[in-house]
Amino acid sequence: MARKNAFYAQSGGVTAVINASASGVIQTARAYRNQIGKVYAGRDGIIGALTEDLIDTSKESTAAIALLRNTPGGAFGSCRYKLKSLESHRREYQRLIEVFEAHDIGYFFYNGGGDSADTCLKVSQLAEAMNYPIQAIHVPKTVDNDLPLTDCCPGFGSVAKYVAVSALEASLDVRSMARTSTKVFVLEVMGRHAGWIAAAGGLIEDHGVPVVVLFPEVPFDEQKFLARVEERVARHGFCTVVVSEGARHEDGRFLAQQGPRDAFGHEQLGGAAPVVARMIRQALGHKFHWAVADYLQRAARHIASTTDARQAYEAGAAAVKLAMEGHNAVMPAIERISDKPYRYRFGVAPLSEVANVEKHMPRHYITPDGFGITEDCKRYLRPLIRGEDYPKYKDGVPVYATLKNVPVARKLATFDVR
Amino acid sequence: MARKNAFYAQSGGVTAVINASASGVIQTARAYRNQIGKVYAGRDGIIGALTEDLIDTSKESTAAIALLRNTPGGAFGSCRYKLKSLESHRREYQRLIEVFEAHDIGYFFYNGGGDSADTCLKVSQLAEAMNYPIQAIHVPKTVDNDLPLTDCCPGFGSVAKYVAVSALEASLDVRSMARTSTKVFVLEVMGRHAGWIAAAGGLIEDHGVPVVVLFPEVPFDEQKFLARVEERVARHGFCTVVVSEGARHEDGRFLAQQGPRDAFGHEQLGGAAPVVARMIRQALGHKFHWAVADYLQRAARHIASTTDARQAYEAGAAAVKLAMEGHNAVMPAIERISDKPYRYRFGVAPLSEVANVEKHMPRHYITPDGFGITEDCKRYLRPLIRGEDYPKYKDGVPVYATLKNVPVARKLATFDVR
Repeated sequence: MARKNAFYAQSGGVTAVINASASGVIQTARAYRNQIGKVYAGRDGIIGALTEDLIDTSKESTAAIALLRNTPGGAFGSCRYKLKSLESHRREYQRLIEVFEAHDIGYFFYNGGGDSADTCLKVSQLAEAMNYPIQAIHVPKTVDNDLPLTDCCPGFGSVAKYVAVSALEASLDVRSMARTSTKVFVLEVMGRHAGWIAAAGGLIEDHGVPVVVLFPEVPFDEQKFLARVEERVARHGFCTVVVSEGARHEDGRFLAQQGPRDAFGHEQLGGAAPVVARMIRQALGHKFHWAVADYLQRAARHIASTTDARQAYEAGAAAVKLAMEGHNAVMPAIERISDKPYRYRFGVAPLSEVANVEKHMPRHYITPDGFGITEDCKRYLRPLIRGEDYPKYKDGVPVYATLKNVPVARKLATFDVR
Repeated sequence: MARKNAFYAQSGGVTAVINASASGVIQTARAYRNQIGKVYAGRDGIIGALTEDLIDTSKESTAAIALLRNTPGGAFGSCRYKLKSLESHRREYQRLIEVFEAHDIGYFFYNGGGDSADTCLKVSQLAEAMNYPIQAIHVPKTVDNDLPLTDCCPGFGSVAKYVAVSALEASLDVRSMARTSTKVFVLEVMGRHAGWIAAAGGLIEDHGVPVVVLFPEVPFDEQKFLARVEERVARHGFCTVVVSEGARHEDGRFLAQQGPRDAFGHEQLGGAAPVVARMIRQALGHKFHWAVADYLQRAARHIASTTDARQAYEAGAAAVKLAMEGHNAVMPAIERISDKPYRYRFGVAPLSEVANVEKHMPRHYITPDGFGITEDCKRYLRPLIRGEDYPKYKDGVPVYATLKNVPVARKLATFDVR
């Protein structure tokens, strides 16, 4: 087998541990020096390949690549850019082949979620469709935890841990304020199509906190919801609500869209949390506080789960090994062997069954009333948030990697990304 | 000196480390067993004293009181309730004396901010004004860091650390997304009257992050602000904005109030962050994300600063020692001896000079353009966020204390808190 270079890129929303996967890919590729030459990272995802904007990761020290494991965000830049079909956008695929050929690239590692798996699948087809020999392996990553065929997705465990810890802490706060002040705390979390992240908020019930979870999977019933909150407040003196940004009404409208346009005709920018908080205030009269965690939750490397950081690294390493075994159009998938003790292994999932498929919360993970999680779900979640994979600190702030990101000399004419 | 019992209560918004002060008061009082009998905690602050709702902390184990040091929220409940003047509300003060007398209370420790210092001062005057012998000592606590006569306030360092760490992490996220997606991230933080918390966001500039800070102390100038953001985006590709909830226009209106009422006549619930984000979108066209940290920031015990947790404990211990030395109407105050190495000691501040006084950011801590912090300010902040005082975890979630909170048997008739 002739030695070929590898291309690696990050795609879609980044996570607290996507760089751990990058570290896994790069360190493992360095170990296969007889088969893999250099690892070129695409600057800003697939756009880096199209524009021949490549980063030579061999210029980074061993220490920098190791530190990458503990650094949030996407060290090489990410993108929201989906390749169209091969038939309609032949020009883009030809360009990819030109760039791959010019830089002797035989391996394509794409680190992303469902949309990115689709891009990776399309690249994998270049081998047959356009006679360019390449192996494309997808490295799973998404805080949404909605990829099929894998027990969980690297990136999710750390967000879940952030949500569980933050919701618990804020609940202890509101509990102390409830007598004369705030009685309800509303926390909005990510997950536009699936409630996995919101589900993590349900874990704090075991810590004596009355919590009501709103999932995208359960159509919102305002009366039932308000009754549930009131019952919790009456009994415990306070209540915490964890609402998914994807929570929606029976007719499909997001809760966050409920707010009418303001006097200037602007769309209401508040998310689901202020809408839910206002609803509670109007119907029940309770003083509230609300938070929207947004990027804080998916960037929170300081509270990353050990399970998650480890799996993210291993997913990168497993992808390289799959390539070495001759695979194409696949993704390393996490297979759970047991809950307690938690054991798992990496298997292989065909991209054709991964791309564009969303895995929602199974109904038996949600309590019959629709506002909490079941013991099955807790059993699923607990090992994923276990362990604290702390970064190092200097002067009170984490030490995160800043790479040199040395560009590879261009060999081709420029190309317009449309 | 006859042995007397002590009363301890928590007041106002709680913090990640107010329970460390409680732990300091209780453990230190236990060491003075010849002078101090039991420590009775007020359930829900001063309301616990008025309603004779006392908690017997002697029923808590040594281990529980030690764990309290690492537990966020207010373990005995807090309140937003300010005693009126002695002249106009004699009835309340007489009730306090009845309760203190019935439970042989000679020491009053009140753990709070500026308003609470005023309550503590009023109680301290009971000795002279109503001939009831009591020593009232204030234990400083406020995330806002706005108490005078103390170099910093327990509670602030941990919020500052949370803001610096979170802003840095989210900035690494937006930096990776900026090519095709989000270019500006807006983080709203607490501090209605003073910009200390927002200032902590300015620390991440030293990590290569372009950050624009909006302080309550600097009247908001929309054109200058937008120009500043645009310059940052043009140069770095992205920008982070840290906005204080107290940021306001020249005429005193809060930015958060800018939104007009909606079609139903409701007040706009979005905070300052969505207002600022929309402004940027409209004027500059950049895609944005925004977060409102709210209670998450002040409850985030998982990322508490070691300096802060230690000072909170020591403030509680110092308060008890001041009482033992015969003081009344005072507060232990932190006096900074040097920045580097960071050294401090506890002095004594008279409550008459503390109550109802707010300490704002000095102008020389804010850069001339009004959007950042100076080297003086960084020198001030750095030691306060230093060190990671991690709690213990079980199954991925912190182990926080839950006290038994055994009530003391009531001896008096009930009393209506108005």
